[in-house]
Amino acid sequence: MNPVTQERRHYEDLAIGDVIDIGTTTVSKEMIISFAREFDPFPFHLDADASKASLLGGLAASGWQTAALSLRMLGDTFLNTIASMGGLGFSDLKWKKPVMVGDTISGTATIAELRRSRSHPERGIVTLDLDIRNQRGEPVMSMRLANLIEARDSGAIPAS
Amino acid sequence: MNPVTQERRHYEDLAIGDVIDIGTTTVSKEMIISFAREFDPFPFHLDADASKASLLGGLAASGWQTAALSLRMLGDTFLNTIASMGGLGFSDLKWKKPVMVGDTISGTATIAELRRSRSHPERGIVTLDLDIRNQRGEPVMSMRLANLIEARDSGAIPAS
Repeated sequence: MNPVTQERRHYEDLAIGDVIDIGTTTVSKEMIISFAREFDPFPFHLDADASKASLLGGLAASGWQTAALSLRMLGDTFLNTIASMGGLGFSDLKWKKPVMVGDTISGTATIAELRRSRSHPERGIVTLDLDIRNQRGEPVMSMRLANLIEARDSGAIPAS
Repeated sequence: MNPVTQERRHYEDLAIGDVIDIGTTTVSKEMIISFAREFDPFPFHLDADASKASLLGGLAASGWQTAALSLRMLGDTFLNTIASMGGLGFSDLKWKKPVMVGDTISGTATIAELRRSRSHPERGIVTLDLDIRNQRGEPVMSMRLANLIEARDSGAIPAS
């Protein structure tokens, strides 16, 4: 077993229905503009005046920034506490409301599925439903992620 | 019509099957480490030695960085040339191979669906299939995005 991760929770230590509180992050104007300059340079993420005329009605974070910040929160509170081997992908990401300057996002991750990898039974796949909300409790983003995790036992069927 | 966007392509100017070349980006060690520090601080995205022992086999970009870089490429070559009103979400993001230090990613976006918004027929929804590959032509990521776009005409049914 990997010495770096053996103290961490493994596949066998997780249960469907577990809910992880992933904490909070407050989104500043500087954060919004800096991320948008690098990845999503639209006027409504860069300029307070231009954003007022947009559908968003004011300076709003790139939805991709909300996703990246949520990933960081999930990493700090969960992925870095388990023997994670990396992400596989995600599905059904939905942006439900914009995240505006000064908003504080928080969220939960719920373990929706747990299964062994078919090709590598010493690995598990954990599926998480992420629910991100603003300080008024309104949903701003949801998505489902799949992550590879080490198992403690090999998952091999013993010879009889 | 919005004076900022009236010269840009609108809903009516797009066609299903259009393929957009979104260009190329080379991913440096500095880019990988800087993104990972902020959003995805796992040893296999931060440390060349630790990454050799991981499933990735060497220093690899966060999959979320591949997604964010692809978004930037799509913005520069397409989203900033149309009357885009913002993203709605995406589905079925899959990371297929790691993006390693020095890899050059390129990609195409294909218009998969075009429809009017039901609640706001003066807006359209364009669905894009993104196919990102490395310099050997191997797929590294795919996803489907939905974006809101202004229409030139209101979409209203004239009174008879």
